[in-house]
Amino acid sequence: MHSNKYIFCLDFRVRDYECDLQGIVNNANYLHYLEHTRHEFLLSKGISFSDLHNEGTDLIIVRIEIDYKFPLRSKDTFKVCLNVRKEGNVRIAFEQDIFRLPDYKHIVHAVVMGAATKNGRPVSPEFVLKKLKLPD
Amino acid sequence: MHSNKYIFCLDFRVRDYECDLQGIVNNANYLHYLEHTRHEFLLSKGISFSDLHNEGTDLIIVRIEIDYKFPLRSKDTFKVCLNVRKEGNVRIAFEQDIFRLPDYKHIVHAVVMGAATKNGRPVSPEFVLKKLKLPD
Amino acid sequence: MHSNKYIFCLDFRVRDYECDLQGIVNNANYLHYLEHTRHEFLLSKGISFSDLHNEGTDLIIVRIEIDYKFPLRSKDTFKVCLNVRKEGNVRIAFEQDIFRLPDYKHIVHAVVMGAATKNGRPVSPEFVLKKLKLPD
Amino acid sequence: MHSNKYIFCLDFRVRDYECDLQGIVNNANYLHYLEHTRHEFLLSKGISFSDLHNEGTDLIIVRIEIDYKFPLRSKDTFKVCLNVRKEGNVRIAFEQDIFRLPDYKHIVHAVVMGAATKNGRPVSPEFVLKKLKLPD
Repeated sequence: MHSNKYIFCLDFRVRDYECDLQGIVNNANYLHYLEHTRHEFLLSKGISFSDLHNEGTDLIIVRIEIDYKFPLRSKDTFKVCLNVRKEGNVRIAFEQDIFRLPDYKHIVHAVVMGAATKNGRPVSPEFVLKKLKLPD
Repeated sequence: MHSNKYIFCLDFRVRDYECDLQGIVNNANYLHYLEHTRHEFLLSKGISFSDLHNEGTDLIIVRIEIDYKFPLRSKDTFKVCLNVRKEGNVRIAFEQDIFRLPDYKHIVHAVVMGAATKNGRPVSPEFVLKKLKLPD
Repeated sequence: MHSNKYIFCLDFRVRDYECDLQGIVNNANYLHYLEHTRHEFLLSKGISFSDLHNEGTDLIIVRIEIDYKFPLRSKDTFKVCLNVRKEGNVRIAFEQDIFRLPDYKHIVHAVVMGAATKNGRPVSPEFVLKKLKLPD
Repeated sequence: MHSNKYIFCLDFRVRDYECDLQGIVNNANYLHYLEHTRHEFLLSKGISFSDLHNEGTDLIIVRIEIDYKFPLRSKDTFKVCLNVRKEGNVRIAFEQDIFRLPDYKHIVHAVVMGAATKNGRPVSPEFVLKKLKLPD
């Protein structure tokens, strides 16, 4: 794995409460890691998920495909990376990977499809794509 | 324990993801059980936490004291009970207990202090107390 | 939608803490709903996720595909349903749907792929399939 | 506030999923912040919560008092600090504070009482106190 394949990465540490009775991070918590990384990426581009919401625009998730390749455990540190592309006219696709540190063991691969709504109605996400400098 | 000591009780089942790597419900999740029970109690009195928020009024928590007497585990069912009283001029105190079923083992005792804000500023919670038919 | 298409369904109520700042249930929490339904289904067949873990056998998730069709909000009640089938030699596939009540609005469709490990190594999930009376 | 009053501090960033429909961090999530800070502190002293569990010893929480002074919101960064002392013969008391950064606004004050069990029975936490170099 090469970090430079990705446009954004964020480092994390497993928190013990994220592990379930099997002693591994619960499957739902990986979605939290993926989301937090997307939101920090958007912030780095001047797009605030919470400010957008307060202005009536919501970025929403319409589909997730996630492969759990190897579990994270207590004390693990890891890196969540992403790439982003336009998908058709109304969707933004985030390609995301999680790697354990320092051995870059591949933990999760996911494709997360987002869309935008304005006052509850679907709108083109072109305002996001423009800030990301992706072709709209 | 006698359920009739309380003005409201709600039954739950432990969900496995609420247990942490010790195999017991994580300490933070009991606050979730307590909150959900308060909100269902308020709803039963015609008070919606989410509707209030949309109208600019927020019920907030200012202090919690919680004693963890015995842990809940996978497959446990349990009952969360509450009483409520006015506390001074600006606070509402919820006295809450959690009992495992069917043996009524005492799991948690908590006192949760709430207050109200309107557009971010403290206000008297008398509108809540009136609906609860508590003296304001 | 017809509930009789499914072999197991479980009713839920949204808990306010499951909603995020957009006022809708956070995307990760649907995985919690799906998991709790699977575990209650397995329990109804005499298979305990936590007992299995204590005996050294873990049921794990290897892949999830989830379509978010419409969001759940505060005060919503909903039904989570499932079917299950063998998938190749080492996987169990759960087909799961979430419907809002009482209008049966389709909220989520998901396919959840499970597998089994014994002391950390992959094993055939035939012991599960037998209890479920699925052909192994 | 002076960081040098504390023996350990850890920096965090609010993750959007930790905020509830009021747009503020949900009351239960502060317990997660406090726990993660305690566990990282213990690790820094060579004590692993998860390793201890695997050896049959559990550090458990018996009581929490928490004052919520001011809420955290999306995009906030903050510092969680702690001091620790022996409390009677069987308890360890963590004094914990949360401060928003960079203004050191006081967010939460908490006292968290811990104890130890060995194979499910209460034991003296002296082995912890020794590693912490606290008088036992």
